[in-house]
Amino acid sequence: MEPLAVLASVPAPVVLRRARPDDVAAIVGLLAADQLGATRDGVHEPGDLAAYEQAFRAIDADPAHLLLVADAGGTVVGTMQLSFLPGLARRGTLRAQIEAVRIADSTRGTGIGGAMMQWAIGEARRRGCALVQLTSDKRRTDAHRFYERLGFAATHEGMKLKLR
Amino acid sequence: MEPLAVLASVPAPVVLRRARPDDVAAIVGLLAADQLGATRDGVHEPGDLAAYEQAFRAIDADPAHLLLVADAGGTVVGTMQLSFLPGLARRGTLRAQIEAVRIADSTRGTGIGGAMMQWAIGEARRRGCALVQLTSDKRRTDAHRFYERLGFAATHEGMKLKLR
Repeated sequence: MEPLAVLASVPAPVVLRRARPDDVAAIVGLLAADQLGATRDGVHEPGDLAAYEQAFRAIDADPAHLLLVADAGGTVVGTMQLSFLPGLARRGTLRAQIEAVRIADSTRGTGIGGAMMQWAIGEARRRGCALVQLTSDKRRTDAHRFYERLGFAATHEGMKLKLR
Repeated sequence: MEPLAVLASVPAPVVLRRARPDDVAAIVGLLAADQLGATRDGVHEPGDLAAYEQAFRAIDADPAHLLLVADAGGTVVGTMQLSFLPGLARRGTLRAQIEAVRIADSTRGTGIGGAMMQWAIGEARRRGCALVQLTSDKRRTDAHRFYERLGFAATHEGMKLKLR
């Protein structure tokens, strides 16, 4: 698959590309490795991977969603989902939404997360979005600083209602 | 169009239904009447309504999005957008997202906003969503109490990056 961007080149090129079906297990591994997601995600029982693969197909089939991976010589070291949502507010402009940003522990501090976000912001601009939005768990204070350095402002409460 | 729910019945029935093209001006009116949205939205110049109508068609054409109005005998007194977003996190379950909730000043305190939200939460449950999420400007403290009474928790920072 055609790379979308080169995120780093030392020691080897790290490219951003759309996720493929055979990346799903690696992406779930990143979700499960995350401290706050560990209880929610992972492949523990037969059938677990199938549920993720079904979600992958739904995301992949809809041009409103881009599921992305940072690929370091064949190893998935980062992931994010970028969605483009229509709405009437703000004069009917699209808004871009970022979900499920995860970077492998081995890759923290390399600038790859920031490069992924910069690509996403640029893509939102190219598609005419008025706004990029995301929510971040209030316990992730390091992440808030990371997003603020990229220009995000924590102007809103991110409110969640769990149904199960 | 078939009503989705009866939200109130005194003095006259208020029904929740999907928005139609001829509701767009009224919905924009609600967006523009909002204190925090007043500078961003409204129909002031030729062409303004056309931009909103184009966004309406994008929302209406995509089954992932429901643009809703509360209709009181032909008058639009409330609106919200409910979207169903696929993702890998939380075992590949859909999440429901609520945007652009607005209630006419004349209709505040009647319970119609709460009834709209309850319908949205029920619909998210029927579609198998694991989560309902929304962001609310930190200045809207009344709105936060309203959402907390419905079961939402402000666990996340809602971060926004304006592109224009």
